[in-house]
Amino acid sequence: MGVFGASGYVGRELLRLLAGHPHATVAFATAESAAGGDLEGVPLVRAADAPLHRAEAVLSCLPHGVSAPYVRAAREAGRRVVDLSADLRLSDEAVYGLTEFARPQLADAALVANPGCYPTAALLALLPLAHQGLLDASREIIVDAASGVTGAGRSPTRELLFGEVAEDYRAYAAGNSHRHLPELQGMLARVGGFAGDVVFTPHLLPVRRGILETIHVPLTRVVDQSTAEGIFAAAYADEPFVRILPQRLPALRDVVYRNIVALGVAAVARVRRPRLTVVAAIDNLVKGAAGQAVQNMNLMMAFPETAGLPC
Amino acid sequence: MGVFGASGYVGRELLRLLAGHPHATVAFATAESAAGGDLEGVPLVRAADAPLHRAEAVLSCLPHGVSAPYVRAAREAGRRVVDLSADLRLSDEAVYGLTEFARPQLADAALVANPGCYPTAALLALLPLAHQGLLDASREIIVDAASGVTGAGRSPTRELLFGEVAEDYRAYAAGNSHRHLPELQGMLARVGGFAGDVVFTPHLLPVRRGILETIHVPLTRVVDQSTAEGIFAAAYADEPFVRILPQRLPALRDVVYRNIVALGVAAVARVRRPRLTVVAAIDNLVKGAAGQAVQNMNLMMAFPETAGLPC
Amino acid sequence: MGVFGASGYVGRELLRLLAGHPHATVAFATAESAAGGDLEGVPLVRAADAPLHRAEAVLSCLPHGVSAPYVRAAREAGRRVVDLSADLRLSDEAVYGLTEFARPQLADAALVANPGCYPTAALLALLPLAHQGLLDASREIIVDAASGVTGAGRSPTRELLFGEVAEDYRAYAAGNSHRHLPELQGMLARVGGFAGDVVFTPHLLPVRRGILETIHVPLTRVVDQSTAEGIFAAAYADEPFVRILPQRLPALRDVVYRNIVALGVAAVARVRRPRLTVVAAIDNLVKGAAGQAVQNMNLMMAFPETAGLPC
Amino acid sequence: MGVFGASGYVGRELLRLLAGHPHATVAFATAESAAGGDLEGVPLVRAADAPLHRAEAVLSCLPHGVSAPYVRAAREAGRRVVDLSADLRLSDEAVYGLTEFARPQLADAALVANPGCYPTAALLALLPLAHQGLLDASREIIVDAASGVTGAGRSPTRELLFGEVAEDYRAYAAGNSHRHLPELQGMLARVGGFAGDVVFTPHLLPVRRGILETIHVPLTRVVDQSTAEGIFAAAYADEPFVRILPQRLPALRDVVYRNIVALGVAAVARVRRPRLTVVAAIDNLVKGAAGQAVQNMNLMMAFPETAGLPC
Repeated sequence: MGVFGASGYVGRELLRLLAGHPHATVAFATAESAAGGDLEGVPLVRAADAPLHRAEAVLSCLPHGVSAPYVRAAREAGRRVVDLSADLRLSDEAVYGLTEFARPQLADAALVANPGCYPTAALLALLPLAHQGLLDASREIIVDAASGVTGAGRSPTRELLFGEVAEDYRAYAAGNSHRHLPELQGMLARVGGFAGDVVFTPHLLPVRRGILETIHVPLTRVVDQSTAEGIFAAAYADEPFVRILPQRLPALRDVVYRNIVALGVAAVARVRRPRLTVVAAIDNLVKGAAGQAVQNMNLMMAFPETAGLPC
Repeated sequence: MGVFGASGYVGRELLRLLAGHPHATVAFATAESAAGGDLEGVPLVRAADAPLHRAEAVLSCLPHGVSAPYVRAAREAGRRVVDLSADLRLSDEAVYGLTEFARPQLADAALVANPGCYPTAALLALLPLAHQGLLDASREIIVDAASGVTGAGRSPTRELLFGEVAEDYRAYAAGNSHRHLPELQGMLARVGGFAGDVVFTPHLLPVRRGILETIHVPLTRVVDQSTAEGIFAAAYADEPFVRILPQRLPALRDVVYRNIVALGVAAVARVRRPRLTVVAAIDNLVKGAAGQAVQNMNLMMAFPETAGLPC
Repeated sequence: MGVFGASGYVGRELLRLLAGHPHATVAFATAESAAGGDLEGVPLVRAADAPLHRAEAVLSCLPHGVSAPYVRAAREAGRRVVDLSADLRLSDEAVYGLTEFARPQLADAALVANPGCYPTAALLALLPLAHQGLLDASREIIVDAASGVTGAGRSPTRELLFGEVAEDYRAYAAGNSHRHLPELQGMLARVGGFAGDVVFTPHLLPVRRGILETIHVPLTRVVDQSTAEGIFAAAYADEPFVRILPQRLPALRDVVYRNIVALGVAAVARVRRPRLTVVAAIDNLVKGAAGQAVQNMNLMMAFPETAGLPC
Repeated sequence: MGVFGASGYVGRELLRLLAGHPHATVAFATAESAAGGDLEGVPLVRAADAPLHRAEAVLSCLPHGVSAPYVRAAREAGRRVVDLSADLRLSDEAVYGLTEFARPQLADAALVANPGCYPTAALLALLPLAHQGLLDASREIIVDAASGVTGAGRSPTRELLFGEVAEDYRAYAAGNSHRHLPELQGMLARVGGFAGDVVFTPHLLPVRRGILETIHVPLTRVVDQSTAEGIFAAAYADEPFVRILPQRLPALRDVVYRNIVALGVAAVARVRRPRLTVVAAIDNLVKGAAGQAVQNMNLMMAFPETAGLPC
């Protein structure tokens, strides 16, 4: 495998996963200011010097806006590619790699756009309900999401200093201004057939890793907790990386350092119209990025889907 | 002043505030297992031994369910009382002490029920909109609230250990099962005339103090951000402890160790019907408990409202 | 394998490691209040009900003072045992399992006492210097050690609450009153032939896992940094789990979730007599407990020493 | 008062303290990139535009190497100055403002160099022992110090990101290479008459504020714990900002947000020669910087020494 953009948090997590992968080896890894050094035993070269011919497949952790040209160069060199940036997620060029809903297309995919971390959790929580016709499109779905700081990258900025983030908590990009909203809405429509409104509000948590989303779902009919759990259990019966927590809501602790999504549900009392609250948790660096990328790559390369992935 | 229940997080914060108060002195402070020791220079006695006659007014930080009998004993001894427990908040016996909306009744109040921390933030965010007829009662108000651990008290339980809470985040009491919901709905109805549905979901943050609430408000008509800021600015024009943040959302950092609520708003784009997101932040131990209690006591005793309170 | 005491932090870490171990399976795991539940897919039974006959070897994570009788019962049933408690560390019954210095005895050991977390780091830092005759016994060795809270266990006590530990830091058991001091001194004498004085002061860090020890070493002769690094590099040339960091001091980040010790050295300037500062870091739950126990078990069972252990 | 360099952590803390000071008002505050904005209600101007004539006294929180010219300009304009940088601490131009040992010189001082945060704690711990002839100069004093991240400033650097510091801990500047060592040794010699060796090793803690130093003191004669506590109690009998903790070691929690130093001692058992361990804790931003600067300014201006300072 070749890895573009290995020095950020996602790139490092990817190298760590590949180091423990039974069927993959890292042919090259790129970084710019850190070129010449090494990570997890892999020497770092500049992206411009990447020996594309040495890698069967390429994974790009380059930033949004930077990734696309390198992805296209790798494609032109005949490599299969998983792009972890947002550059191609809404494009027809690439398979949208939400693994649990993209498996048929992945085996032959030449180019996979790995989903964003926030949409991964929200889509895995909402699609089974959409497929049962349970989402009431006349009322808004409210997604309140909270992420650890590694989701914001490793570039030094004042607002991400420990002295600013510790003991703090805040919302950002409120009012539906986050770039993950179009991705979430687009895939709810494309995969789930849902065309209603969504309000998405991310928050910054004083933790290193993990995303927890509290998703407020207006329903077309009454669904009690055990029925709701049954819907998720049926939808994900054979999934190695989805956990439905019976009678319990997930916490970050259930998912960090693992490639799983954990889902829990609560039927909402004391309201006039039917509602569920679904809570979804993932590790933003694993199931939300590097882990899902490896999962996709495993399917592309016909490796066992779980190879190298902690569950 | 006399303080019942001084050894918990709220009680200690109250002693700290009273120690710096220019017009109040602490006549007694009670604790059970810590009786015989002292806090902030005040000796601790058992609640049963409290010298009620020495204090002009009494503040009770005793736990819910424990506080009421001591409050009644203090009332029978002729003392004026601020009860920080939930015991009397929904009762007619006591003035509900959300200071900004209770000022006329506080001067002569014999017994004040200090609001819960979560309802304090939510009501200060919602009441000005309710008073403008802006809350659309046909759609649910969604309140996602996150609190630091001091909100859960100082009793040793496994789930509050540092080893469990650090690097974690979780929802709890989802599905409208938290006891603060009836308080919030009751006061929205009584003070705001709002009878619609509310969904309230608290979360546990890995921070020591602070509450941040992200409040999703369906509107009866379109209101842009500057109009919304103007509504809040007008409603709270003379309030010493309310901050409207123009064009910015509050963070815990804006409010910890202060008796203020900070409010920010965002008009929601990409939805069909009008909506605002309001974010409210308070320090759960100050404006959410001990600080608001001192603010109420100041008004009861005809001290300056801001005496002893950091803003 | 059988695991006694699986519900604490060390026991859970051990189950996690064994779940990923290529040659071991968990035959039983015990817990008391959590009996009836399960962890990492393993059902929990009471220690008194442990099916000893099903396990080839037994690892005990029971607390100090509780472990010894279960260890002896397992021995009487003919099982080989790694005891992670302190009960037998200073006894002749058991091999002291500081793996790097006990390898010859481990292959045939029936009973291994796994070292304490603090002594593991200190001994790995000091023994190579002792073996070179470099420790000046006429001056005291000062060991300042800082540990994450999982080192203090999972029992609910007020002083380990998040509200108490977060943003705090403290020394404890100062003045040489910690029970790990006799273990450290005893092994420095037995394995290193060093009979001088040691001052050991542990501190509680607001982190979940990791131990970092800053060890002030008076030397018998001048040793510069590169010579010191060379001494460690030679002593640990073939060790899979020891990292000598050239020209750099370790941080917790270098070792958490891994079974390694990381060592860095600095020659001390501006003093009249020769001195080194050695900094040693381990994960208290891995190399300081469960990981080293697996490493020892691997050698006892003739598995590859690194099987199942992240490095 | 005028404040140079108000936008860093120390400058902000100073503005916060001055905002609550009963006798001081802020005439100007400077910042560079933040000029034009305001902090704690004070407008920020560039340092070059500071209206020196409006302030009776000036406090400089400018960085080391930047402060001296502004300090000299203020002196030339006839202003009295407290310089919080290291620029003049070892110079004869300025009074070294370790308040408890500099009081006689402060009343008339034109220029005060405020001590560094690490030396403040260490000197307050060591000078009373030095004055009793208790420090054994034939053995090294070992100072292991741990500081919260605000001690490292507010400039954005990767190693201070939350994602790097959280759950981490590390030593730095080991081997006596920190610039605070000459300050500490120089003042131990000048004020304490001690000429022995010192080994000083700072560490970076994952907390926002606070310094805790564990100081290993070789003694010329045996001193038990209560005698040691008595020596400190006598030395600091009338000091408003020094707390001797009987039979207990301080934690950061005892001192944050306060202008105090907390001291605790332990006599060391199981060693052949007499030793004490002294633990000293301060808030690096208060007693270690802005608070001590206000304390010094109070004495220079003949205000009450405790005015505006939390204790």
